[in-house]
Amino acid sequence: MKTSPFAPSAFPDLPPIAGFDMASAACGIKYKDRDDLWILRGQAGTHMAAVFTRNRMPGAPVTWSKRALLAPFNPDAPRILVVNSGNSNVFTGEAGKRATALTAEVAEKVFAAEAPAVMLASTGVIGEVLDVGKIVRAMPDMRTDMKSDGWNQAAQAIMTTDTYAKGATAEAKIGDVPVRINGIAKGSGMIAPDMATMLAFIATDARISQSALQSMLSGFTQLTFNAITVDSDTSTSDMVLLAASGAADHAPMTDPHDPALSDFKNALLRVMLNLSHQIIKDGEGARKFIAINVNGAVNDDSARKVAMSIGNSPLVKTAIAGEDANWGRIVMAIGKSGEPADPELLTVALGPHVLARKGQLAPEYTEERGAEYMRRDHLEINVELGLGQGSFTAWTCDLTHDYININADYRS
Amino acid sequence: MKTSPFAPSAFPDLPPIAGFDMASAACGIKYKDRDDLWILRGQAGTHMAAVFTRNRMPGAPVTWSKRALLAPFNPDAPRILVVNSGNSNVFTGEAGKRATALTAEVAEKVFAAEAPAVMLASTGVIGEVLDVGKIVRAMPDMRTDMKSDGWNQAAQAIMTTDTYAKGATAEAKIGDVPVRINGIAKGSGMIAPDMATMLAFIATDARISQSALQSMLSGFTQLTFNAITVDSDTSTSDMVLLAASGAADHAPMTDPHDPALSDFKNALLRVMLNLSHQIIKDGEGARKFIAINVNGAVNDDSARKVAMSIGNSPLVKTAIAGEDANWGRIVMAIGKSGEPADPELLTVALGPHVLARKGQLAPEYTEERGAEYMRRDHLEINVELGLGQGSFTAWTCDLTHDYININADYRS
Repeated sequence: MKTSPFAPSAFPDLPPIAGFDMASAACGIKYKDRDDLWILRGQAGTHMAAVFTRNRMPGAPVTWSKRALLAPFNPDAPRILVVNSGNSNVFTGEAGKRATALTAEVAEKVFAAEAPAVMLASTGVIGEVLDVGKIVRAMPDMRTDMKSDGWNQAAQAIMTTDTYAKGATAEAKIGDVPVRINGIAKGSGMIAPDMATMLAFIATDARISQSALQSMLSGFTQLTFNAITVDSDTSTSDMVLLAASGAADHAPMTDPHDPALSDFKNALLRVMLNLSHQIIKDGEGARKFIAINVNGAVNDDSARKVAMSIGNSPLVKTAIAGEDANWGRIVMAIGKSGEPADPELLTVALGPHVLARKGQLAPEYTEERGAEYMRRDHLEINVELGLGQGSFTAWTCDLTHDYININADYRS
Repeated sequence: MKTSPFAPSAFPDLPPIAGFDMASAACGIKYKDRDDLWILRGQAGTHMAAVFTRNRMPGAPVTWSKRALLAPFNPDAPRILVVNSGNSNVFTGEAGKRATALTAEVAEKVFAAEAPAVMLASTGVIGEVLDVGKIVRAMPDMRTDMKSDGWNQAAQAIMTTDTYAKGATAEAKIGDVPVRINGIAKGSGMIAPDMATMLAFIATDARISQSALQSMLSGFTQLTFNAITVDSDTSTSDMVLLAASGAADHAPMTDPHDPALSDFKNALLRVMLNLSHQIIKDGEGARKFIAINVNGAVNDDSARKVAMSIGNSPLVKTAIAGEDANWGRIVMAIGKSGEPADPELLTVALGPHVLARKGQLAPEYTEERGAEYMRRDHLEINVELGLGQGSFTAWTCDLTHDYININADYRS
């Protein structure tokens, strides 16, 4: 598969995070000669927060992790995350449930964790029974290999058909104490019959309570991972996890609105935005990265629906692939959202170039100006609905022949 | 553009319908050397019913016709429909509104109709001011040309980038009296910057009241034109119109549930199904025609949402283009609909071949069987949710490279 034109020249330097160690291994689930298993261990007292796919056919690991997240756990035992690629363990019936239970049970013994301290995520082919023996047999050696430095290797191990590994890091201060946030993600490179599985794992040494972590993660997910779309299809395996070891030496934080957390929250949002944008930039066949800014909606939720209607429209996305400043299709996508909108009040611009204003073509707009702008690889669609204060930004990529190539190929 | 592989060998024979005459003309709105204007006249007493796009950015002709349909009219004057192709008169501000008013005003004088007896529809490029002078100047000659036999020519005149003209006809009895239903439609061949405009016009000589016509048209539209999807994008110009001249010599019908109408309703539904299927078969780049049958949903509306979620999924549609029996993507699309569904109760079949049953791969299914079935050009996806009595059938086409070719081409 061709590497995305947006691939960074190198994986960013992700330093160790105090309180976490990890190992990756090649256990041969599907791929040959590459890692396909990653285990992250948080020290005793680590808190975890997570958000999951809303698909009604979630995979067995999603069901397991949802329950594990909510169950009481022993604060004196470490917490474990086990992630495999190559098989998503989705739609695998009772065998899939047994695979998740056995993975957690063995991880608990090997890493001295305590169930339900074990979180699970899987990505890859669906409908095939996961050979859980390969995973559990790899664990003892992985325990020996555990080290604090391994984020680059981890980002590679969780890839399926991604064309590059995705990582981001940021530093923040809580009070006077510096803390670190690392994140890795995978997603959006697909071949039949894989799903557009999106997984992201974020770790920090900050001391933050579970409820405060969950509040920040859920809120920021709406603005980041839930604000991106490649093709409108929602995976059965999506998961974003945030783990905090509490190793940093600042006062414990329990209120997500505590002003002492504002620098941390900015850093967390930056890491989540960075990772979600990297997923779009590795979207199947993507050649253009598009930010869709909607303002003037009746409320933020309405702005979100308008932005996603534009971002999911095949006609808008093919026009962008063709470098066609086709504002008529943008107007169509706004209208089909069903959200309040009035042609007479609407303004549509490509970057700084206003195309349509008050129900008709802007007199100063020229095809040449639009065509020149469309040749860029980073584009902005700016919509002003003129109705209220609601706003939202979504991100998407164009719809190209490579999307068809990647997804219409017969399974080999 | 390549002609669809589903194009019929010849346009069907649509005989005259008593009480209607018509004319087509080449007035040069956009295309050269082909008709682009069609006028249909119904005799005094003709009733009309119509359904329109739900897009919030409707074109000026849609806004005009919605009002004209509801306004009182003179039963002693003829009723007129004016349709042009090449310019959809959408997002054209005040100039667009003036164009609709002038078209109706001149049609009223030339054809001795009485406003608001004039219905309008336009399809083609959006955002360009319609040169209404070309339309009104063509009308006097068209009046001279009016004849009862012209359905084939009409179906050609309303095309934009359709690859074949679409027509259907049926006969039915009301009491002992034979009546005739003719319909023409256009839609789904698109080039930038056109919309997926879907227009259908149906005429009958039956004597049926406006309210009964509207009731039948609205109900059947849900099962036909609103049950098809090429790419999930909703046009700003969609319109389906049903006109009844009342020329047939049976008792007037005013109750849509009158048993005397059952044969007529069957015939009308057949014509509407036929036309809507022809639109899918001329969908951009379509090489496969797919029926999606959903049963066992909690209700019909839920079944509809599940069916449309499958029919709109780019991953399902690209898999079908690649002749890949990718049932995992069907499961994903069912789940992302958000409708009640339980993996443990779900059955998914391709035609007669059950792929997935009760949360896992069906043991009797083989890849060979699926691959053989997928080579057909007419496919069925059968979903049984196992929850209730709700059912719905939707139709779609595959997503191929030609879809990208057609829609990513820069405007020439």
